[in-house]
Amino acid sequence: MTKLVKPLILVTNDDGITSPGIRMLIKQMNILGDVVVVAPNSPQSGKSHAISISEPLRCDPIDIDTGPQIEYSCSGTPADCIKLAIHEILDRRPDIIVSGVNHGSNASVNVIYSGTMAAAIEGAMQGIPSIGFSILDYDWNTDFSFAEKYVSEITSKVIHQGLPNGVCLNVNIPKAKNKDYKGVRVCHQTIGKWEEDFDKRKDPFDKDYYWMSGEFKNQDDSKNCDIRTLENDFISIVPIQFDLTSHDSIEFLGEYFNK
Amino acid sequence: MTKLVKPLILVTNDDGITSPGIRMLIKQMNILGDVVVVAPNSPQSGKSHAISISEPLRCDPIDIDTGPQIEYSCSGTPADCIKLAIHEILDRRPDIIVSGVNHGSNASVNVIYSGTMAAAIEGAMQGIPSIGFSILDYDWNTDFSFAEKYVSEITSKVIHQGLPNGVCLNVNIPKAKNKDYKGVRVCHQTIGKWEEDFDKRKDPFDKDYYWMSGEFKNQDDSKNCDIRTLENDFISIVPIQFDLTSHDSIEFLGEYFNK
Repeated sequence: MTKLVKPLILVTNDDGITSPGIRMLIKQMNILGDVVVVAPNSPQSGKSHAISISEPLRCDPIDIDTGPQIEYSCSGTPADCIKLAIHEILDRRPDIIVSGVNHGSNASVNVIYSGTMAAAIEGAMQGIPSIGFSILDYDWNTDFSFAEKYVSEITSKVIHQGLPNGVCLNVNIPKAKNKDYKGVRVCHQTIGKWEEDFDKRKDPFDKDYYWMSGEFKNQDDSKNCDIRTLENDFISIVPIQFDLTSHDSIEFLGEYFNK
Repeated sequence: MTKLVKPLILVTNDDGITSPGIRMLIKQMNILGDVVVVAPNSPQSGKSHAISISEPLRCDPIDIDTGPQIEYSCSGTPADCIKLAIHEILDRRPDIIVSGVNHGSNASVNVIYSGTMAAAIEGAMQGIPSIGFSILDYDWNTDFSFAEKYVSEITSKVIHQGLPNGVCLNVNIPKAKNKDYKGVRVCHQTIGKWEEDFDKRKDPFDKDYYWMSGEFKNQDDSKNCDIRTLENDFISIVPIQFDLTSHDSIEFLGEYFNK
């Protein structure tokens, strides 16, 4: 008789282990396999692919709810969590890594600043199928009820079929509007940028400091970019690669720089 | 009579404003244009593209040597430094951004963890020609004498000719061996990964903590990857893009996920 082994699912995020987004994700993943959570003990938004080179890491078992998952609370970044989980905490390689659900959009260039997506990219770098999920709503009371089945279906497909080598998925989910989403579209990262605005203030000791804020400028008029997809109330999936080489530029730049 | 305006060069790094690598870079850049330095006040290695979302930033004028450059010491990450410089400190857009010279390799996947390269990528995102420089030597007394002319030539070419849209350069320089390098090669990011090793220890209170270390596994046997180029004593230039979309996967994955 064949012993059935459930898929091992590693879960992390960047909003911290107690955020509603990861609790929803864990609940869905418990239906699909055996779940181990290694997630930051504090918010790590905007930490990108930072890793802890010169500080030690803490990673302690924790019980947050009564679900069957095993959980660890980690002092590091999302990328640290993946490295520590794979090489130290888990006794076998996970079949899939899921990160999120992030509170706030990781569409367009936000993918570059995102700790949620860094965890998924780190997973892909380790050769493990990986997905980052985000919902376009910062409210911790956001309505996940329409998102749940899509999170579950997308994850299930990846567990069973895998992903192309060197590719992970950046899944963004529109804010719920009391009805089902229109569907799912695989699309590309919207070309655009943040234009920052700095609020210069004086501290009580008359020294300057700055608060960074900014406005996103969409510079992409294509129909199949992730922001447009989300505006049309579809869930967007962007395949993300960690080979950052602009292969198209090598020959042209070679003629110019090689010596 | 035409007034000649020198190029405005913005300089940053991730090792901190007093590191020998940035001091060498500033010295070379002073020959090429007007230099403004906005660099971290403390080491930011491994900080990747992290930005300060929930903490304010300090950015204060500082005099470190007697050169003509204007310098600011910033409490943020390298990406913060670029944003703050462009949108708050500088009175016009820089003609070029140079980051480094980093002490240690940013070849292969190191580009993803690198604060030095995040500054260059942020520059490209802002539409400014940008270069990150690194030397394969952690020693702060490393010999930059053979590197200087290449740093200067590569920067000068980019000032005069620009770079393709959405692309910056990841330049790595071999450790000096008492003779000139063999030349310069434009090449691709080596496929490979870090396999981490965690050293588990007990603190004085009998609680566990971990130190992360690791070994790089080269999985790339192509001749034109950056690690091979560096091993052959050439300076490597990898064109880096911030569109992370795996465009080749969109159609295939669309057939699978679109609904």
